[in-house]
Amino acid sequence: MQPFELTLAEAATALEERTLSPVELTESVLERIGAVDERLGAYVTVAGETARNSAARAEREIADGRYRGPLHGIPFGLKDMIDVAGMPTTASSRVRAGHLAQTDSTVARQLSAAGGVLLGKTHTHEFAYGLTTPQTRNAWSQEHVAGGSSGGSAVAVAAGEATFALGTDTGGSIRVPAALNGTVGLKPTYGLVSRHGVTALSWSLDHVGPLTRTVRDAALVLSALVGHDPQDPASLRAVPSACPLPPDGGDMTGLRIGVPVNYYFDRVAPEVEAAVREALTQMTDMGAELVEVEIPMTRYIQPTHWGLMVPEATAYHERTLRSVPELYGPDVRILLEAGELVSAGDYLRAQRSRTLMRQAWLRLFDGIDVLAAPTVPITAAKTDQQTVQWPDGTTEGVPDAYVRLSAPANITGLPALSLSAGRDRAGLPIGLQLIGRPLAEATLLRTGHAYECARGVVDRGSAVAGA
Amino acid sequence: MQPFELTLAEAATALEERTLSPVELTESVLERIGAVDERLGAYVTVAGETARNSAARAEREIADGRYRGPLHGIPFGLKDMIDVAGMPTTASSRVRAGHLAQTDSTVARQLSAAGGVLLGKTHTHEFAYGLTTPQTRNAWSQEHVAGGSSGGSAVAVAAGEATFALGTDTGGSIRVPAALNGTVGLKPTYGLVSRHGVTALSWSLDHVGPLTRTVRDAALVLSALVGHDPQDPASLRAVPSACPLPPDGGDMTGLRIGVPVNYYFDRVAPEVEAAVREALTQMTDMGAELVEVEIPMTRYIQPTHWGLMVPEATAYHERTLRSVPELYGPDVRILLEAGELVSAGDYLRAQRSRTLMRQAWLRLFDGIDVLAAPTVPITAAKTDQQTVQWPDGTTEGVPDAYVRLSAPANITGLPALSLSAGRDRAGLPIGLQLIGRPLAEATLLRTGHAYECARGVVDRGSAVAGA
Repeated sequence: MQPFELTLAEAATALEERTLSPVELTESVLERIGAVDERLGAYVTVAGETARNSAARAEREIADGRYRGPLHGIPFGLKDMIDVAGMPTTASSRVRAGHLAQTDSTVARQLSAAGGVLLGKTHTHEFAYGLTTPQTRNAWSQEHVAGGSSGGSAVAVAAGEATFALGTDTGGSIRVPAALNGTVGLKPTYGLVSRHGVTALSWSLDHVGPLTRTVRDAALVLSALVGHDPQDPASLRAVPSACPLPPDGGDMTGLRIGVPVNYYFDRVAPEVEAAVREALTQMTDMGAELVEVEIPMTRYIQPTHWGLMVPEATAYHERTLRSVPELYGPDVRILLEAGELVSAGDYLRAQRSRTLMRQAWLRLFDGIDVLAAPTVPITAAKTDQQTVQWPDGTTEGVPDAYVRLSAPANITGLPALSLSAGRDRAGLPIGLQLIGRPLAEATLLRTGHAYECARGVVDRGSAVAGA
Repeated sequence: MQPFELTLAEAATALEERTLSPVELTESVLERIGAVDERLGAYVTVAGETARNSAARAEREIADGRYRGPLHGIPFGLKDMIDVAGMPTTASSRVRAGHLAQTDSTVARQLSAAGGVLLGKTHTHEFAYGLTTPQTRNAWSQEHVAGGSSGGSAVAVAAGEATFALGTDTGGSIRVPAALNGTVGLKPTYGLVSRHGVTALSWSLDHVGPLTRTVRDAALVLSALVGHDPQDPASLRAVPSACPLPPDGGDMTGLRIGVPVNYYFDRVAPEVEAAVREALTQMTDMGAELVEVEIPMTRYIQPTHWGLMVPEATAYHERTLRSVPELYGPDVRILLEAGELVSAGDYLRAQRSRTLMRQAWLRLFDGIDVLAAPTVPITAAKTDQQTVQWPDGTTEGVPDAYVRLSAPANITGLPALSLSAGRDRAGLPIGLQLIGRPLAEATLLRTGHAYECARGVVDRGSAVAGA
């Protein structure tokens, strides 16, 4: 196994024990980028020189006995919505030509302080306003979409082009590409991770979180990101200072897992449903109790999500939408222009609906610890596929399908973890989604880690696409 | 002096020492209502029977040694936006014909638990959407407005028709009528007092608070109202369980009082400015230090306030505005209908402006403990007066003038206290406004109480209009 294939936890152990050096690891990942990224298109910018310098510094520090912790010397990618001082934040858009970030975002500063090695910036669907990331190809198939909007981050992690990466998630943009590329993706509780210095899509729905190859790796990255940040107005004040690592072992005794009787298994591909239900069976074998639950207010999910996101996105882009509308891609421009037509009344109805929906979801968790569901109703679509035909006769746009099962956790702010639950016949990954109470990241990570342990190394060993 | 003239603190002492009985006090206030309310119009509903029963119960409890505290046996009025089970909440509107509240609002329950004696419901400007309260007359002059929207509460307290009352404040609706009638009015920190069961005007700006005859009385009422309420989504979690009573004595050594160099003394009647500046001089004599401060973002105050209030109010009235528009008064109906034309973009700009304004105001308080300013730029207007002519050549609508100096504390959520700073030549009260940091009610109350102590009994003795 080559260094670029290691999980974060494996690499960290090797670096701490000095059986691997940060320079070796970074060179291995940079070589991997050189070998596959022309084909995959995960990166907007690869900062090889910067990465080598950071790795050399980490190597000296570790050699001097100044080991900072599990991210020290680990190479990572940042979705190109996240500011790094001295680099452009392109948001994969022509609108940002000539951009240069003056200061680090809070998360970039946190990862730098933890000793992480920044490799570069990964592609996003333009301004994170879409679910496919057309510049990037799925890590497992050239003919299929990467998913989005954090498509570059997911593909980089899945293909060994980064040991971990960060993404942003407004309606599923971490979890959708994580599911489609077979990585882990965590959307934390709203307000747990700072968005300061991160380009907004919709500030009341935006989250920053990790994409990794295992659940344990997600816990390691999250620990470096939590904490109150006065520069993000939505940042929570009372937060844990770190995220506990999930213990090994597969006992789920006492865990009540909610299984939706509506919404989450409607209009879901049979292979996806079967994989998720098999995962649930596995969890009952491990001691978990399944509890049927009814998802509240499902008719309001899409209008609430759109009613919040569309006008907030337009407000953010107000000036450039007037000055340089032709620089936006046509799909993003039409959404932004549509946002100008939304009335304050519609937006307020969406806000009020969100309040009621959040309350109803919190009550849902009175009887369960975790909700389990598919992350997305279909695996990766073909790059030219526009719609999904469902057996009930309805037709759904591919982006609508991808956002459908992810959006509730953005509306409610609840933490949601996506992890791999196997493959379909075409070999494309299937995502399992676990949703928890506010700030119950530890419960999600413990559950996901136990499930991964039970599935064994099968998936772990084949975690790097094409390696 | 008759019982209805007593301050809350005086009455409470007499009740606790049993030199006065709750029944005597309540009868005195009910008689007072009978004598003056036909002229003043402070009350929508007087619940004499209910009040007598409550007073008799309080009398028995106190006689039995079960004294509950300073509100026990004290007669009070509630603005008719506040639900009391079994009574209509008319909001002084024809739209509410046939209304009957099923349960108590949180504040009504709190006052009932403290042993208070509910006298009835006081007039509001229709649905709290105005600054005059046309049904009610100023306590000091038939020809002048009561102010609004809590005009009934202010006049009831000023005229001895209630020992205290509650009001609501979205742009000044507690402080404006308090100032115009010479009472004390406190708008607490946003989220400190529950709005559950209180008809909304604009939920992101609405506050509930006390109107009293002295600052100390306001502290006594506030103590009964603070506390987290999960039924109000904006209710703060970490709040003091009670408000400490301000100590007697006039020392202000160490207190830094901010005096605005802009905005708060622009377009202010000379007599109002002179009274407020005299109060400031008095405070420096008591040891306070005056610090000149510049009010931030003043150009944005009115558009931000309107941009938030107008669409939120319309959203609240959506259904009845369509079904029974003719039942609204013309002034309120036109505002509600205008709200339908506000775009989501305008509302979002107002929300973003509020965030920036709040941050700028918090920085202002780095250098001061209290900001002192007029509450309103003019004393009570004549009932038929539409506009104010200013020496700079501008003309301002009376409601715009009344809301101008009060709205910043609603936008920012900061606590604000209005107290009397004397009279103009016509004998109409002048309001002094003290604004503090979030949750710094104790500082405001201590400052206001010290100022009242220094001014002596002069104002206290003449506190009840026409008595």
